[in-house]
Parts: sequence; structure tokens; C-alpha cells
Amino acid sequence: MSFISTLDNLVIVLVRPRNPLNIGAAARAMSNFGAHRLRLVNPYAVAFREARSAVGASDLLKNAEEHEELRDAVADCALVVGTTAGRHRTLKHPMHTLNSSTAEAMRQHLQSGRVALLFGSEKIGLTNEDFSYCHWLLNIPTQQNHISMNLGQAVAVCLYELAGVPRRAPSTPATPRATGEVNEQISALLLDALQMSEYVKPGTDIVSEKKVRRLILRFGLDPEDAKVFLGMVRQIVWKLRGEKRLTPERLR
Amino acid sequence: MSFISTLDNLVIVLVRPRNPLNIGAAARAMSNFGAHRLRLVNPYAVAFREARSAVGASDLLKNAEEHEELRDAVADCALVVGTTAGRHRTLKHPMHTLNSSTAEAMRQHLQSGRVALLFGSEKIGLTNEDFSYCHWLLNIPTQQNHISMNLGQAVAVCLYELAGVPRRAPSTPATPRATGEVNEQISALLLDALQMSEYVKPGTDIVSEKKVRRLILRFGLDPEDAKVFLGMVRQIVWKLRGEKRLTPERLR
Repeated sequence: MSFISTLDNLVIVLVRPRNPLNIGAAARAMSNFGAHRLRLVNPYAVAFREARSAVGASDLLKNAEEHEELRDAVADCALVVGTTAGRHRTLKHPMHTLNSSTAEAMRQHLQSGRVALLFGSEKIGLTNEDFSYCHWLLNIPTQQNHISMNLGQAVAVCLYELAGVPRRAPSTPATPRATGEVNEQISALLLDALQMSEYVKPGTDIVSEKKVRRLILRFGLDPEDAKVFLGMVRQIVWKLRGEKRLTPERLR
Repeated sequence: MSFISTLDNLVIVLVRPRNPLNIGAAARAMSNFGAHRLRLVNPYAVAFREARSAVGASDLLKNAEEHEELRDAVADCALVVGTTAGRHRTLKHPMHTLNSSTAEAMRQHLQSGRVALLFGSEKIGLTNEDFSYCHWLLNIPTQQNHISMNLGQAVAVCLYELAGVPRRAPSTPATPRATGEVNEQISALLLDALQMSEYVKPGTDIVSEKKVRRLILRFGLDPEDAKVFLGMVRQIVWKLRGEKRLTPERLR
């Protein structure tokens, strides 16, 4: 797949991470999205040891490089990008928002050389000293009153965008839909009807229930149609039960 | 901001989550991206209790609804979307890949009614029974040999895409760049030169170091220019130190 080679030149740098779970989560996201160069700058020693010795720790994590200085961790990188939650910095760095265009620009850099993507410590993020090694900063667009992301989640979101999913038009049209409640009423009544009419064999109820439910959902009923169809099925069930036909008033 | 109201109709449903950290992480990602309706179906009781009582647990988490049946958790939703890592299912559901087009389709649904996005338990994901409540399935595109994402990260990635970041052209051109190592050599030599030439005042070295480094990075030197510039600065430093001019051979 093409995006495997695209992220081959990407270096994820965790600067002073303190939580072994976050280190593990960053490594897992890298595996998910095809990045494999992980470097840690001055990690909290216990955290790094725990992350590496965790059950299921990946080779990626075991092969992670450790550096004392950020300078050394980015020495072979032609583009260094620092992630930041805030927009309050007074640094004169170009600030980019993570989106498909920014990701495309980074992928172009990745074709010609290594790119480092920096994530700061859980508590304080990247410092001004760290930023001084960055060509530009990358902001993950979040709610203004909840800007700070979990480290592992921030890594996952960046890698998802960098992996560059092909964009295709969805095949599902966005028309109004009946609610789950109405669909469920229809499904339940239809199943009743199928059982009473011996369409459904005894002992296969659970399988049939799912099949019916999926069938109804595939109908993609709009709210009006759903109401009408529900009335129809309800009427059939009453009939099968041997009860009298509903009066038109009650059908309403 | 426009995407706050867009995700107002989104319902995140965690089906049988077992890890309090994952529940907390899902809630945090929701806060980051402006979703606030969280529902849990049959959570492991201890996990839910721990997640809610954790230090810093959000109101969103405290207000999360608990349901025994998935049916009830999606009763008011007009579109139910189940997330899945695999492509091996034999179900006849429409399968969509998470990307900007799919997200746009979901946002269109969100304008007219509630949309549920389902995430399965950490161990087994969503079951066929769960899928039977879904109109369609959503696949987060990952590496084929590492398809399974961490729950909190999967929620974050989906919400990031659903939040619908505005796409803008990046302002940084993607030209080849000098490596960090070369830029650092240039910065260090230039700082030497500035100190020796008394441009830098005594006692402000650290501030100056950062300023210089950022300046060099803003130059955006390509590899050839960097080599040339490094030679220039090196020569200036030698000169300032009162040493002899380098021979042309050594400049090479």
C-alpha cells in the first residue's frame, strides 16, 4: 500500500514523556498507520522501561531510540514540526493547522528526506527551547475551551491525517431517516408476523431477529415511510393473531 | 465555531467497555472535538465507576447515560454507524472508510437528526448482534497487519475527522531542506561569530541561541545553500578568532 512507504521517512519524537501508557499508545498508533521510527528525548526512565517491558510491546517500541538532547534526535531530519495545542505563543514560527493540505505538504517533504514530528510532555508540552528546533508548528484544531489532547490520541490523529486516506465519495445518500426506535418497532412486529406465519423456523429466532433488523435498516426508511410501514405491519400482526381489523381511527 | 453545533447531534456509544482509562480517554476526545453525548451499553461496572470518579473527570463523563441494551441507546438516532477494524465480516452492511467524504455525509445526517457512532469492547469489538442495529459500518483505514486500534484513539480519530477541519492550502512550500544537523552547525557557528563580534550581549546567551536557531530555520535553506552558508560562517569565525584564512582546499 502506498502510504507505508510514505511514512517510512517519518520520525515521531516524544519529548520528555512521563506516562508508560502514553508511550505505548503512541507506538500502537504508529503501527496502525505505518510509521515505525520512534525516538524519545529524556523520557522518564521508569516510564520508558515499563512501556518497553509491557506485555505485547511491539518491536517498534523495543527499537525506539533514546536521546538526551532534542538536537540529536532531529539531527538527520530535513523538516522538524512541533505540535502544539495553543495559539498563544509569541514565537515567530509559521503555524499550520492539521488538515489534509498540511498533511499533503508534509508528505511531499517525506519524499525527499526525513521529517520529525515532535510531541511534548503530558504536562507542559513542548518548550520554547524545543520550538527553536522546529521549522514550523502544527496545531490540532480542538475546541477553544478544551485544547489539550491526550498524548496518545494526539499522535493517533496526526498519523491518521498523515497516512493520507484516499478520499472517495460516499455511496450512502444523506436523506432524512427514521429513528432507531421506529425501525426497531417495525422489525419486532415484522418478526412477530414472520413467526406467526411460520416463515421463521422454530429455534432460529435469534438469527432471524438480526436478519430482519438489518433488512429494515437497509430499507433506509424516511420518517414518513416508516410510520406508514409500521402501520401496515402492525395491522398484519393483528390479523395473524386473529383479532379484528383496527378501525381507521386507531390506525391513526 | 460552526463545528460545535454540528456535533451536537452526535451520540458516542461505547458498547461493553472494560477499561476505565479508555472510557476517560473517549470522553476527553469528545471534549476536544465538541461532542458531548456519551452513552455506555453494559459497561464493566467497576470501570465505569472508576472512570467517573477519576480526578478531573468531566461533566460529560458524569452525565454519560448507561443502558443495558444497545437498542435503547440508539432509540432516538436516525443513523446508526458501527466502527470496525476488520473487513472480514460477511454482513451485508454498506461498509465505508473513514475519510473527509464519509465525514461530510455523516455531518449532513447530523443536520436533520441524531447520529450514533458505536465503538465495541476493547477485546472483541462489536458483535454481529450489535451490527444488526447499524445502518452502515465505518472502517478506520489502518495497516493490514495492525488493524486493531486502541479504543480511545479510535474515538479521537473519528471525532477529528467528523469535526470537519477547514482545509486550506499550506503556506510552507515543500522544497528540499537542509538537515537539522547542518542547520545546527550553522547556528552554533553564527552564534560564536555574534558573541565574538559583541553583537550578543554577555548574559543573554541562551536567549540568543534560540533566536539564532529559529532564524536559521526560517531561512529554509536547501542542502546546497546550507553547505555554502556553513562555509561562509565558519570562515568568519576563524577570522574573528584571529586565525589565518583557510586555504581554498580546506573550504571545500
